[in-house]
Amino acid sequence: MTAARGRFIVLEGIEGAGKSTAMASVQSLLQGLGYRLEVTREPGGTDLGESIRELLLTHRRDGMHDDTEALLMFAARAENLARRIRPALERGDWILCDRFTDATYAYQGAGRGLSMERIAALEQWVQGDLRPDLVLVLDVPADVGLARAASRGGPADRFESEQWEFFERVRACYLERAAQSPERYRVVNTDQPIEQVRADVELAVSGWLAEVGE
Amino acid sequence: MTAARGRFIVLEGIEGAGKSTAMASVQSLLQGLGYRLEVTREPGGTDLGESIRELLLTHRRDGMHDDTEALLMFAARAENLARRIRPALERGDWILCDRFTDATYAYQGAGRGLSMERIAALEQWVQGDLRPDLVLVLDVPADVGLARAASRGGPADRFESEQWEFFERVRACYLERAAQSPERYRVVNTDQPIEQVRADVELAVSGWLAEVGE
Repeated sequence: MTAARGRFIVLEGIEGAGKSTAMASVQSLLQGLGYRLEVTREPGGTDLGESIRELLLTHRRDGMHDDTEALLMFAARAENLARRIRPALERGDWILCDRFTDATYAYQGAGRGLSMERIAALEQWVQGDLRPDLVLVLDVPADVGLARAASRGGPADRFESEQWEFFERVRACYLERAAQSPERYRVVNTDQPIEQVRADVELAVSGWLAEVGE
Repeated sequence: MTAARGRFIVLEGIEGAGKSTAMASVQSLLQGLGYRLEVTREPGGTDLGESIRELLLTHRRDGMHDDTEALLMFAARAENLARRIRPALERGDWILCDRFTDATYAYQGAGRGLSMERIAALEQWVQGDLRPDLVLVLDVPADVGLARAASRGGPADRFESEQWEFFERVRACYLERAAQSPERYRVVNTDQPIEQVRADVELAVSGWLAEVGE
């Protein structure tokens, strides 16, 4: 008997969209249902990936070409896929990942202006046919998200220091991708009280679980 | 009047092939002829590229998938192309680069076993149609090169710690690529006394200059 392949769930959203809260809700829901869950994030998730993340978040903006940024994102992703995501899925565990390739389409594509075709080429190069089974998009207007992120304090990283127009492009890309593949995407409005967000996240994931027969 | 595009010259070779000696010879020859020359290296050449180089040379071997290694090489390359190589060529300056994409075919392809087709896809993604005008391959048997590299002392990096079979595959790939495009490649035997190597390097470059009408 071979274990069934695990499921691959990704959370996406702009700065201040409530990813941390939603990560905790999804984790608690799935573990409560008895799924063995491995939690990771991108860029990062491995020692090397975290070093790459450090370069991506802190290297001064004018010293990173958009192509370089995309290649570094996919380098961290290749490592995460090889070391953690594929092994977990193959042994039947589930993966919950804080951002994945949708973030590359949204940030490097819609945000920076890299062509979607070029991102798709790297996606295929790095992932082959592997795609997330569920992408949960946490949606909030950019000004609301940025105000939340600012209220957390601390210096802004290379992405957080972008302007709201940038994040509105990122947000629109997430919504567009969700609309194109409704079977694999769920959108949760996080411009609501936190208890309502938690309830909507659980509802979205439970609904998806029922649809895919889990 | 617009300046003619500069020429793009690359030096390649395994560990201990004599690249430093040859770099100095080529630089002195070209500057003596009056060409404005910018010298760079890969991985590296920019602040960010040097940080990526550090990851590539020092990160422990079992913590880097071959795909990740190739993507990091091309990330450093994208930055070097955007910041230094393309701007120099466009203003009419020449570039002398210590390793470039032939090294990726040789080390990540022939050495590690990554498919040449996948490397070619990244090459096209990152470089478009830009290819070096001249690749000077410094050729030495792997055991001779490794003995030279070892005599320099210091701890071996992630590549230097590979075995000689690895470097024989790398070497064979360089020779094969040189044989396939003789108009753009010159091979210099560096298993000779250093004065003879210097003379052969100058002869190879001078011969190429004459052929391309410089």
